[in-house]
Amino acid sequence: MSATHASPQPLRVTVWNEGRDERLHAEVAARYPRGIHGAIAEGIAEHLGDGARLRTATLDEPEHGLTEQVLAGTDVLTWWGHLAHREVSDEVVERVRRRVLGGMGLIVLHSGHWSKIFTRLMGTTCTLRWRAAGERELVWTLAPGHPIAAGVPHPIVIEQQEMYGEFFDIPVPDELVFVSSFSGGEVFRSGCTFRRGHGRIFYFSPGDQDYPVYHHPDVRRVIANAVRWAAPDGFRGKPKLIHSEAGWFDAGGRA
Amino acid sequence: MSATHASPQPLRVTVWNEGRDERLHAEVAARYPRGIHGAIAEGIAEHLGDGARLRTATLDEPEHGLTEQVLAGTDVLTWWGHLAHREVSDEVVERVRRRVLGGMGLIVLHSGHWSKIFTRLMGTTCTLRWRAAGERELVWTLAPGHPIAAGVPHPIVIEQQEMYGEFFDIPVPDELVFVSSFSGGEVFRSGCTFRRGHGRIFYFSPGDQDYPVYHHPDVRRVIANAVRWAAPDGFRGKPKLIHSEAGWFDAGGRA
Amino acid sequence: MSATHASPQPLRVTVWNEGRDERLHAEVAARYPRGIHGAIAEGIAEHLGDGARLRTATLDEPEHGLTEQVLAGTDVLTWWGHLAHREVSDEVVERVRRRVLGGMGLIVLHSGHWSKIFTRLMGTTCTLRWRAAGERELVWTLAPGHPIAAGVPHPIVIEQQEMYGEFFDIPVPDELVFVSSFSGGEVFRSGCTFRRGHGRIFYFSPGDQDYPVYHHPDVRRVIANAVRWAAPDGFRGKPKLIHSEAGWFDAGGRA
Amino acid sequence: MSATHASPQPLRVTVWNEGRDERLHAEVAARYPRGIHGAIAEGIAEHLGDGARLRTATLDEPEHGLTEQVLAGTDVLTWWGHLAHREVSDEVVERVRRRVLGGMGLIVLHSGHWSKIFTRLMGTTCTLRWRAAGERELVWTLAPGHPIAAGVPHPIVIEQQEMYGEFFDIPVPDELVFVSSFSGGEVFRSGCTFRRGHGRIFYFSPGDQDYPVYHHPDVRRVIANAVRWAAPDGFRGKPKLIHSEAGWFDAGGRA
Repeated sequence: MSATHASPQPLRVTVWNEGRDERLHAEVAARYPRGIHGAIAEGIAEHLGDGARLRTATLDEPEHGLTEQVLAGTDVLTWWGHLAHREVSDEVVERVRRRVLGGMGLIVLHSGHWSKIFTRLMGTTCTLRWRAAGERELVWTLAPGHPIAAGVPHPIVIEQQEMYGEFFDIPVPDELVFVSSFSGGEVFRSGCTFRRGHGRIFYFSPGDQDYPVYHHPDVRRVIANAVRWAAPDGFRGKPKLIHSEAGWFDAGGRA
Repeated sequence: MSATHASPQPLRVTVWNEGRDERLHAEVAARYPRGIHGAIAEGIAEHLGDGARLRTATLDEPEHGLTEQVLAGTDVLTWWGHLAHREVSDEVVERVRRRVLGGMGLIVLHSGHWSKIFTRLMGTTCTLRWRAAGERELVWTLAPGHPIAAGVPHPIVIEQQEMYGEFFDIPVPDELVFVSSFSGGEVFRSGCTFRRGHGRIFYFSPGDQDYPVYHHPDVRRVIANAVRWAAPDGFRGKPKLIHSEAGWFDAGGRA
Repeated sequence: MSATHASPQPLRVTVWNEGRDERLHAEVAARYPRGIHGAIAEGIAEHLGDGARLRTATLDEPEHGLTEQVLAGTDVLTWWGHLAHREVSDEVVERVRRRVLGGMGLIVLHSGHWSKIFTRLMGTTCTLRWRAAGERELVWTLAPGHPIAAGVPHPIVIEQQEMYGEFFDIPVPDELVFVSSFSGGEVFRSGCTFRRGHGRIFYFSPGDQDYPVYHHPDVRRVIANAVRWAAPDGFRGKPKLIHSEAGWFDAGGRA
Repeated sequence: MSATHASPQPLRVTVWNEGRDERLHAEVAARYPRGIHGAIAEGIAEHLGDGARLRTATLDEPEHGLTEQVLAGTDVLTWWGHLAHREVSDEVVERVRRRVLGGMGLIVLHSGHWSKIFTRLMGTTCTLRWRAAGERELVWTLAPGHPIAAGVPHPIVIEQQEMYGEFFDIPVPDELVFVSSFSGGEVFRSGCTFRRGHGRIFYFSPGDQDYPVYHHPDVRRVIANAVRWAAPDGFRGKPKLIHSEAGWFDAGGRA
C-alpha cells in the first residue's frame, strides 16, 4: 500500500424535493432561489466535494423524478416534502421503500416526517406537536463520537425555526443522536437513526421553508455527515424468504 | 386499604386465526380439534383464568370477525396466519393497525411474521430462513426478569418444531426476550417486543400447525404472560398531529 | 378465583439519604423538616399505601444503615446523596451492588448521579453540565404507556429547579422515559431505565435540596411508580459462572 | 480534490495478552508460536496493512506494558486474558478505563469477558455458561451492513471451539452484531458493541487458547473490522462535570 490510493467511487446522491412552497410563496422562492433541493444539494456538495455525485428530483417531474433507473443509480436519497404528501404516488413510494430495504440510504428532512415513505417505513403515525413562531432551536448532541455529529458545536444554535415537540410518534430509534429544545420549552428527538432491511435511515428535523435553515453551516454539515453515514456497504438486495436445507452452510453455499 | 380488594376488570382478549390449515389437512384438525385458535385460547385461559375474557375470530367470518365493535372491545389481539395472508382485507388490516397505535396490544405468533398486519407495523419484509424438518428448538431467555419470561425454564425445550433462522428482517426489537437454536444449528430471535404508537407488540415464533406446539405448557405460559404484558395502561387513542400555542402547558391544558 | 384475593406481600422499600444538607443548612432543614428521606418516603407512602413497607437509612448510621440484614430485607432501595459521596464506604457500595445484580431494585435520585453506587453500576463517569439558578424544568414523557410515566401530565412543570444538562455521560439507557428542558435552553435525559444483572435501575433527576421538588405531587408519583416498576420478580441471586455438561437441559436440571 | 489523496494517519493499535497459557502449556505454545498476541496482531496486520501500526504488551512486563505513555499513543487496545485476571493491577485497570472513557477503542476477546477492565466498564458480573468440549460454533450476523460484519460469511463456521452460553450477564448491548450457536444447543451473544464515555467497545467471544481460532480467516477479519470501527473520531478526553453560566452557548464558548 502506498501513501496515496485511488479514491473510492463517488457516492450517488439524489436530493428530492416536493417543490411547491417555492412556487406558491414568493418569500420562499427568495429564500431558496434554487429551490429547497438546490440549497440542500449545495450544502452536501460543500462538504463531500468530489466524493458525491448529486442530482435532484421533484414531485412534478414524471414519476416524481424517481424512476427505477434513477433509484438504481442512487446510493442515498434525501427527502423533503410538506404540502403535497398525498400527491406522491403509492407506486413510487413502494419503489423507494423496496430500494431502502435493499440497501439505499434515506435521509428524511423536517416536514418529511409525515411523508408516505417515512410513515410507511416506520409503521407509526409519525405525528408530533408543532408551532410556527420563529423560536430559537438548540440542537444538543446525545451521542458524541457518532459520525453524524462530527464537527458540529454542542449545541447547534438555530436562531429561528418552527417548533417540533414531543410526543413524536416514531419507533424507538436505534440511535438517538440529537435532542432539541425550543424557546417555548418543548423538546424533540431531532436526530434519529433507524435500520430497515439493509438500508440506513436518518431523520433530521431542523430545516424549514419559512426560515433559512438550509443555509445554516452546521445544519448543512449534519446532512452531509448523514449522507456519508447512510451509504450502503457493498451489498444491495431486499431481504427475502429463504428455504434452507439442513447443513447448507457446510457446502460453501453461504448467503 | 384492606387485605382484599376488588379484582381489576378482566382483560378482553381476541384470539384470531386464519383457520385454513385445520380444514385442509385432517392431521392438523386432529392435532388441534378446536382449531389453532381453540388451543391458543385454552392456554391463555389456563393461566389468566377469570382475569381474561376470551373470544375468537377467524378469516372466513364476515370482516374476518374483526369489526370495529369487536376491536373496540378488545384489549389484546393475538394473530395466527399462514396460507392466506393475502386474503386478509386491507381495510381490516388498517383498522387493526389504528387500534394498535391507539393502545391495543398485539401478539403475533409464528407464521404471522409474514401477515399484512405485522409487516405493515414493522415497515420491513419480515422475511426469514426456514425448514420444516421436525427439529428440536431450544428457547433461551436473554432478559431474565422480563415479565414475558416469568416462570419458564431456561431453555424451553420443544422436541419438534419448524426451523426459523436468521436473518430475520425486522427492526431492532425494543427488547430481545428470547433467542432460539435449532438442531440444524440456526439461531432465531424468537421473542421480541416492539412499541408502536401507544400499543405494545410481542412477536413469538414457537408454534406451528404441523407440530403440537400450542399444547406445550411453557409455550402457553409465554403467550399468557405476553397477553398480560401487552395490556393497555389506561390511555386509548391514536397519536395525532397537535398544533400548540406557546405556553399551553401553563394553562393546565396538558395533554 | 373469586372477585377478591389476598394482597401480595407489601414491597419492602428502603429510602437512603446522605442527610448532610439538612444538618448544615437551616433552610434545607426548614424545607424538609423530616429530612429529604422523610419527604421521599412520604411521597411513596402516599401512592403505595399498604402496598409498601418503608424504612429509611442515612450515611451517619453504622454501616450507613445498610447492613447485610437490612439489604436482605429490601426489595427496592432509593438513593439520594450530594456532598459526601466519598464518605460512603467501598464495602457498603459493593454490598449494594451485589444486591442489585441479584435482583434488588435501585432508584437513583438527582445528585445521586455521582454516587459511588451509580457510577460503579454504570461504568462511566456519570458527569453532566449543571447550574443552580432556580430555572423552570419541564419533564416530557418520551415513552407514553411506560408504567413509570403513568398518571403524570405531559409535561410535568417544576417551577424552580437546578439545571442538569447534556452531555450526561451514561451508557445508552434501556428505555428513555423522560427528557427535560430548562429555561436556559438545556436538555437532559431525566428519566432512564437500566437492567444490570437481575436488578432494575431507574435514574430520575428532578429533586433537590434547595428547591421543594420532593413535595411536588407529580415527582412523588414518578418515584412511587418507579419503586413499583423496580420490584424484583421472584428470583433473587447474583448471576454466576456455570460449568455445564452437554445436554444438561434434557435432564430436567434446568436453571 | 484530486483522484488521489494522502493516507490518513495509521491507527495505533496495542494488542494485549496475558501470555500465561503459552508458557504453561506446550500445546498452546505450539498452536500459537508467537503467542496469542502474535496471532491476533498478525490477523490485524493482514487486513489493515499500513493502515495500522501495531505493538503488543503482556502481563509480565513492567506495568503490564501499559504505561501512561503507551496508552497515550494507543488508538485501539485489544484485550485477551484468561488465568490471571486478578494479577492485573487495579491501577493499570483504572488507567485503561480512563483512556476508554476518553475515546480509546477497546476490543475484548473471548475469556476477557471476565477481566477486570471489562467487568469494571460494564458494571455487571459478565458471567456466563461454559464447556470445553471442542464443539462447532456457528456465528450468525444479526446486523447485516454493520461495518464489523463486513465481508464475513453468514454463518462463520468454527469447527472446534469452547462453548459459551447464555445467560451472559452484560448490559443490553448498544448493537447486537453476532449471535452464535454451539453443537450442544446453547446460544450466545458473541458480538456486542457498547459506547462508554467517548470510547467504543466491542466484545467478541470466538477465540481460545485450546483451539486455533485466532488463525481462522473470518475471525481475523472480524477483529480487524472491529479495530477500525473502534477508532476514535478526533476528540480525546474523559467527560467531566461542567458548571455552566446561563447563555454560555451564545458567547461562542461552545463545548
